[in-house]
This record gives sequence, C-alpha cells and structure tokens, in this order.
Amino acid sequence: MAYQPKASERTGGAGRSSMREVAELAGVAMSSVSRVLSGHPDVSPAMRERVMEAVERLGYQPDLLAQSLRRRATRTAGFVVGDISNPLLAEITQGAETALREAGYSMLLTNSENDPALDARHIRLLEQRRVDGLLLSLAAEDSPETLDVLRRSETPVVLIDRELGADIPASAVLSDHRAGMRAAVAHLLDLGHRRIGFIAGQPVRPSRERWLALREVHEERRLPAGYEVLEGALAPEHGRSATQRLLDGPEPPTAIVAGGNQLLVGALAELVQRGTTIGEGGLSLVSCDEISLTELFSPPIAVVRRDNRELGRHAARLLLRRLEGEEHPETVVLPTEFVPRASCAPPA
Amino acid sequence: MAYQPKASERTGGAGRSSMREVAELAGVAMSSVSRVLSGHPDVSPAMRERVMEAVERLGYQPDLLAQSLRRRATRTAGFVVGDISNPLLAEITQGAETALREAGYSMLLTNSENDPALDARHIRLLEQRRVDGLLLSLAAEDSPETLDVLRRSETPVVLIDRELGADIPASAVLSDHRAGMRAAVAHLLDLGHRRIGFIAGQPVRPSRERWLALREVHEERRLPAGYEVLEGALAPEHGRSATQRLLDGPEPPTAIVAGGNQLLVGALAELVQRGTTIGEGGLSLVSCDEISLTELFSPPIAVVRRDNRELGRHAARLLLRRLEGEEHPETVVLPTEFVPRASCAPPA
Repeated sequence: MAYQPKASERTGGAGRSSMREVAELAGVAMSSVSRVLSGHPDVSPAMRERVMEAVERLGYQPDLLAQSLRRRATRTAGFVVGDISNPLLAEITQGAETALREAGYSMLLTNSENDPALDARHIRLLEQRRVDGLLLSLAAEDSPETLDVLRRSETPVVLIDRELGADIPASAVLSDHRAGMRAAVAHLLDLGHRRIGFIAGQPVRPSRERWLALREVHEERRLPAGYEVLEGALAPEHGRSATQRLLDGPEPPTAIVAGGNQLLVGALAELVQRGTTIGEGGLSLVSCDEISLTELFSPPIAVVRRDNRELGRHAARLLLRRLEGEEHPETVVLPTEFVPRASCAPPA
Repeated sequence: MAYQPKASERTGGAGRSSMREVAELAGVAMSSVSRVLSGHPDVSPAMRERVMEAVERLGYQPDLLAQSLRRRATRTAGFVVGDISNPLLAEITQGAETALREAGYSMLLTNSENDPALDARHIRLLEQRRVDGLLLSLAAEDSPETLDVLRRSETPVVLIDRELGADIPASAVLSDHRAGMRAAVAHLLDLGHRRIGFIAGQPVRPSRERWLALREVHEERRLPAGYEVLEGALAPEHGRSATQRLLDGPEPPTAIVAGGNQLLVGALAELVQRGTTIGEGGLSLVSCDEISLTELFSPPIAVVRRDNRELGRHAARLLLRRLEGEEHPETVVLPTEFVPRASCAPPA
C-alpha cells in the first residue's frame, strides 16, 4: 500500500518538508523512508509506524509527479495479443494503438498464438522491456505461470475481456456478452427452436457469459435445457469439427450459435460443403462479432456485435489513467447488441 | 560509405592495431578516424584519404560486432502498418512479430490509417524510440515528407511491397503481383471477357504491377484495351462506389477484378444489394488476397493469393540480416497464385 497524502496536503506548495527531514525526525535512513512510502513489502510494522508518524507530524508530501515520471520512463505500453490475425483483435489493437499514440505512448505488440505458456513469457519479456503498462488479451484465465507472473508484477495492467482473481489488481474492459447472447437465445426460442448448439471458444469470460445467458433464458422460460455446448480452441478447425459433431449427433440442433468469427468460418465451411440450407427451411445460425462475411453471406448471418475499436480505445484509456497516477484499477463494461438476420428462421 | 575491411584482414586476431594507432599515424584526432570509418558525411576528401592510408598501412580492422552492438541497443523493430484492421496486414504483422520475437527482438507497432502524413510522423516517432530497424508498409511511395525522413535516416529499413527511389537504400519484400494478375486476366480473356473493370487501391506498387499485367496480356494477345481501371483508397467505400460507376457506365464490364480484400467487401455489398448474379450467367469476379469471404461466398470467388504470414516472416528476416551486419539492402520477390473459382464464367 503506497502512502496516500490527504487532500489537504496535496495543495501545499511553499514550505514543504523534505524526505530528509522525515528521515531525521523518525531517526531512520532515507532509504527506509523511501521503502515505507513506496509500499515496499520488506518493511517491519514498527518501522512503518515510526516513519508514518514523522510524515504526519511534518505534513510531508511526496512528489507524486516526479515519482510517476521515474516509474514510467519509457512511455511504452505492451499489448499481449492472443492472435493478431483474428479480425476482432486486429480491430481492438487498432483502437488501442490510436488512443495510446495520441497520448504520446508507443505500443509494443506480442502475439501469443492463443498459447497460455506464451502469455506468461510475453508478459515477462515486456516487463524486461520496461513497458509502463500492459494490455492483456490472455489465452487463459487460470494459467498458473501467468497468474504467478502477474502477482509478482507491479506494472499496471488492463485486462481485455478477461477476469482474474481479486489478488491480481487489474483494470478491465469487459463486453456485456450476456445481454447480447440473451437476446439471441430469446430470438431463437421465440422462433420455436428447442435444440440449440453453441460452439464456444476456450473457457474464458466470453464463453462463460454466453453459456450463462443460454442457461438463464431457458430457466426463466421454464424450458428444459435443450442445448448443447462444445468448447474448444478459437479457430476454424474447432468450428468445423463441432458443427460435424452437432449435426451427426442423435438429436441434431435446429439452430447453431458460433461464439466467434473464426468458429463461424469453420462452421460455414462445413455447412457449405454439406449443402445445408441456412435460414428459411433449414438450420438457423447466429455468430458473435461482425465480419464482412456475416453481412455478405447469403443469407446474411445474425450476429451479437460490439464496437471492437471502442473496446481497444477504452482499454488504452484505462491504462493511461493508471499511468497518470490513478491508484485503483477500474472496470468498464461495454454493450453488445443482437442483430437478427435472415440466417434465423423457424425450425424446418 | 563505411570502411569495409578486406577478407585477409578479417581473420586477424592477435597483434591487432588500435584506432588510436591509426589516429597517431594519420596525425588526426580519434574522433576524426571514427567519423571516417563510420561513413559520416561531414568529412573532407583529404581527411578521408589520410585516415584510410593509415588504416591500410596498419591493417587496422574495426570491431564490427562491437560497432553493431553499440548501434542496436534496444533490440526493437518498428513496424509502420497502414491499417492493422486489414486482414492482409494483420497476417503480415503476425508473421513478422513471430520471426522478430524468435530472434530476441520486440516489435513496436504504429497504425497510419493509410495516411502518408502519418507514415512520416511514425517513422520519426519510432526513430526517437531508438528502434534498431524499421518495417514499412507505406501509404504512399511519393510522399515528400516520408522520402525526406527516410533520406536523413540511418536506420535499416525493409519495405513491404513498396518501391522507393534508388537514393533510399532499403531492403524490400515484394509480391509478384504481376504473375498472379496475368494468370487471372488470361483466364478471363479465355472465358471470352473483353471488358474488364479493375478496382485498384492507392497508386502504389501492387496496383501498378496489376495494371501492367492487365495491359501486357491484352497487348500480347493483340486485343484492344477493353479494360477500365479505377484507383482509389484501399477501403470498402471505394470498392462500392467504383462498382457503381463501372456498372452504371455506358459500357459496363462483364468481369470485375477487386485489387484487395477491403475493395472486394465494398464491391460485394453493392452487387448483393443490386441482386447481381455472380459467375454463371452473370458478372465474373476476381479478388486479390484470400479472406474467409472469398472461399465461403456463394459462388466462391476466384482470387490471386499469396502467403501473407510468409511475407511478414521474410520482411523480418531481411531486417535481421541488416541488424546482424549485412551492409547491403536486399530485395526478395515472393510468388502469387491465381485460383480460378465459380465466380468466373463466360460472359452472359
């Protein structure tokens, strides 16, 4: 816990006391004062009390600006991206880079190939590069290496659509996947669908929230859980094989929700190859996140969409707030929207 | 021109002479020797001759490794990307980032929003960040600001699919757009098309090479130039408006070539809205660069494709060669391939 001057102290200018005076009054070394004020963990409670008593008596006000300038000398932010070739992440990156650059920060980018082991390695790499802060689009939320690296880190962090334990103080930009998915599921149920297949990505926040939405809407309508969820890698291969398993199962779904644009690409490849009719008189289809394919496919594909560039800009802004002295992590939740299209129709 | 030791000198180890001895023999200051050997422009011919004479006589061998280590202290490469949300550039970025990271380099990324003024500003920004080298996917090849910045720069540069004047010594990774476009045009002419519309991006190398291919194939077949070329921004808006102009013109084309995936998205939006039949019995369509839409659209869309990740990896490798001491810029040309699909058929 770093020392927080009281509001009344912040206004002081003339007649300030120095760290040296604090050290003299407390009868300790300058370095001990510094350690107490910077929240260093290796400080005994007695030492802490002694120094803070002197700080109070002298009304000492640490120079927060100078401190923060010392702390962030490089004016670079690191961005650990799961897969930059995913249009979703490319758009988030674009938004973040623009907002950072406008604030005078440069962006170091690493690509984790959706591999949790690379996440941890890249965070360490970026810290060695002395980035001032980190934007993280992590491959996993429960990787012990990643959590360990983050627990030891003092670099301000903004999570993009991920949730970690409370022991890791991080800001976060979240999408309200649940609201969009609830609207999509309600639409499918209204059309008469009772067997929905959900092709989900890795078990991270977006998948979890969408699954919750699926369950909630069924429960609220007192409908049996006639849905099937297949989790896997956020890649076309999983989209394709999950579609095969769903359609070749004993009770194939009448509607499929693809939890991401790369899953949609795999699902569509399978459906096109089978000659499956989509929409009217066939299988209903919903995707998550708009890409050119969703609007231009025939029939156009219903989507749960969001503003990805805005997500990136918001993530950058939250990081900048931390770098400008805000001590407390913040969480922002951005909306999603369900757009019904001709790919959804009553079950055949 | 930096001093290049002869091969016979490179092998020496023991008994090496020092820069100090060179300075003493030439009767000049150490700093003058250093300026001559580093190719500093502010050196008189007389000074240069005096120093080089002493270098020759002593068989002095500058420590190239130490020099290059001094030169590249940050182990970062800057990447000026035109538009990271363009799937083509996202894939190139992915390839480059992986290759750089594997070599121990980090990547600083800036997004120029396809604006030549931002290109120049970002090159300057990255140089202030002391990047060791630059990968450039420039918005324009003839922007005076960009050319001026690059002329003054000593940072090794790799151009991605761009050509600048010979006064700017840069390595380059080029795609053989001409070969792929020649095959596409030949295919359309073989099918019987005599009016081809080409929707091109900015007048940079890819557009130029494709236009050349269009002209060459017509000339070789002694066919009249029955094609129309519309240049514009590499964005869906231009794809859409160019399609409108082509189809609403006095002699609408029977085949359209979209020179990039974002142009295709705009063109398809217009064609879908008009209900234009594509392929058999309608308009033929070719695009450049594969995206999920080209394979999954109905009918599938013929493309001139290339390996974008490989392009990025090659660009990184050329930069690494420069950073490892290779003095001379190199140019690599990578293949493109035409993939005919059902979007191409004889004219209706």
